[in-house]
Amino acid sequence: MNVLPPEKTTADQASFEGLISAMKIAIIGFGKIAHDEHAPAIAESGTFSLVAAVSRGKGPAGLPCFQDVETLLHSGPDFDAVSICLPPQVRFDAAAAALSAGKHVLLEKPPGATLGEVAQLGRLAEANNVSLYTSWHSRHAPGVEKARIWLSGRTVQRFHLSWCEDVRIWHPDQQWIWQPGGMGVFDTGMNGLALAEAVLPQSFALKSARLDIPENRFAPIAAGLDFTCTDGTGLRADFNWSHSGADHKALIAETAEGMLILDKGGERLVINGQCLIDEPQREYAAIYNRFSHLIAAGESDIDTTPLAHVADAFMIGERKTVEAFED
Amino acid sequence: MNVLPPEKTTADQASFEGLISAMKIAIIGFGKIAHDEHAPAIAESGTFSLVAAVSRGKGPAGLPCFQDVETLLHSGPDFDAVSICLPPQVRFDAAAAALSAGKHVLLEKPPGATLGEVAQLGRLAEANNVSLYTSWHSRHAPGVEKARIWLSGRTVQRFHLSWCEDVRIWHPDQQWIWQPGGMGVFDTGMNGLALAEAVLPQSFALKSARLDIPENRFAPIAAGLDFTCTDGTGLRADFNWSHSGADHKALIAETAEGMLILDKGGERLVINGQCLIDEPQREYAAIYNRFSHLIAAGESDIDTTPLAHVADAFMIGERKTVEAFED
Repeated sequence: MNVLPPEKTTADQASFEGLISAMKIAIIGFGKIAHDEHAPAIAESGTFSLVAAVSRGKGPAGLPCFQDVETLLHSGPDFDAVSICLPPQVRFDAAAAALSAGKHVLLEKPPGATLGEVAQLGRLAEANNVSLYTSWHSRHAPGVEKARIWLSGRTVQRFHLSWCEDVRIWHPDQQWIWQPGGMGVFDTGMNGLALAEAVLPQSFALKSARLDIPENRFAPIAAGLDFTCTDGTGLRADFNWSHSGADHKALIAETAEGMLILDKGGERLVINGQCLIDEPQREYAAIYNRFSHLIAAGESDIDTTPLAHVADAFMIGERKTVEAFED
Repeated sequence: MNVLPPEKTTADQASFEGLISAMKIAIIGFGKIAHDEHAPAIAESGTFSLVAAVSRGKGPAGLPCFQDVETLLHSGPDFDAVSICLPPQVRFDAAAAALSAGKHVLLEKPPGATLGEVAQLGRLAEANNVSLYTSWHSRHAPGVEKARIWLSGRTVQRFHLSWCEDVRIWHPDQQWIWQPGGMGVFDTGMNGLALAEAVLPQSFALKSARLDIPENRFAPIAAGLDFTCTDGTGLRADFNWSHSGADHKALIAETAEGMLILDKGGERLVINGQCLIDEPQREYAAIYNRFSHLIAAGESDIDTTPLAHVADAFMIGERKTVEAFED
């Protein structure tokens, strides 16, 4: 389909919205995140219409559901875009097939099992003249923008990122998270890294890391990472999947003018004890809004920075074997 | 200094060369590679003049030598550019200091210990309006260009990359290669990956890997990697540092129209049994030529693709503990 870029006038804007609201989308991989976040966000988007899904289990109610991407492409209804929510290990083949068929592609995080795969998808999107969007939902958390503005120009003594949850609650009996490409605790930790990239005034690079690997698993259950910002400010990150009790997902900045705490995964912002924001996230609404604008502008948004930090951690991280993890 | 971009006319070209030949350069880290390759290439470049070095050991004969980059910057002679040949773990600080002081920077491979570091250096180069060049010497091997041209448009059944040498010969008593950031056998293997990137018609992405890690070391002594090109063609890579006898460094392509063998690290090209090229490498002459043109054009060349493949291998590679390695 042809989509016009957004224009400034009201009439043109209405025309653009009319065109873009015709955008038909299919969800590939209809698991927990697709059911809980993607399908509702698409329904409320006003710009996308869910027309089909690919799932080996239950699909969305009342819509055609296919066993694999090839069957969807050859036997399914017409559609313009796909949202890919499969585990990272099998994400590439589905994305490559969709891009090659001329479909716009939105990728859940992480955008692939390897950096090389994502680079290939970027070239495929360009060759097929479609949009590829490597989404990082945590960047759209409610407190991110205000935190970013408050920190810009301020001198920070130290950043601390903590991303801790109970893997048994979030990933019960999911084996892919422990296998190569699943990345273990980095599956949640990279949300913290993506949020930090959106908030910090400077980029940061990994200097050392420690990975705690259960003796019966490939991937870490906990990790401690020391990054340095371009100006030398330290960023300490601690990720823990054997955390008990409520999730603890926070970015803390100690500055000369007080302390900034962005916690609850970015939903709450507290500066010097004053709560400025505390509201439920609408991250996926923001993701689909951005996706529609990328398609309209004929652009892609391919950012592998958080995944590169994870790869860096595997490359230079010291490994410590810890007790076996049983589901 | 101001450097004009190269022009087409002979008079302008002479003028450009006159300006660029004034380029004063310092070598940071005067070890084996600096002595054997960089210093001779600079001397023969006609565009760079070596004026100083930083080394804790012996520096180049007859030139001032400093203990660290800060002393060079504050107490050394004037210079315009640096060539950084330190081990990857300490490369970043030297490069960041040089870029921040307004010097153009050439980095030996790998360009850093982590991908995050290289991204930061790229931003520093841009902010300071200087050129950063992440060099990959193997890309300039004699047979690369002809191999690339012969393969383009041909259907390849399979690529095989083999990069094997005796670490005791190439890195006697060097501990940094085994430590985090040193990357073990990938220190040589990434030369093969960089060469393959320059020769293959398509990009490739890692699908699985096996790393052999000596029980007393952090980094692998051998690795086997399976990549897939965008069109599905397989690339198998085998790196081995406990290889005995002569080095074996070759890229082989099996095609419908015969076999291409690029071996001796790219110095010899044999197609269907016919030797087309067999000549000593002049890789570093090509590197300094490229560096001078980047500076003249006010551009940077920052390519982390081979390093990203290495990071991918550490991220998804299965690890096998092998016997201890003693120097």
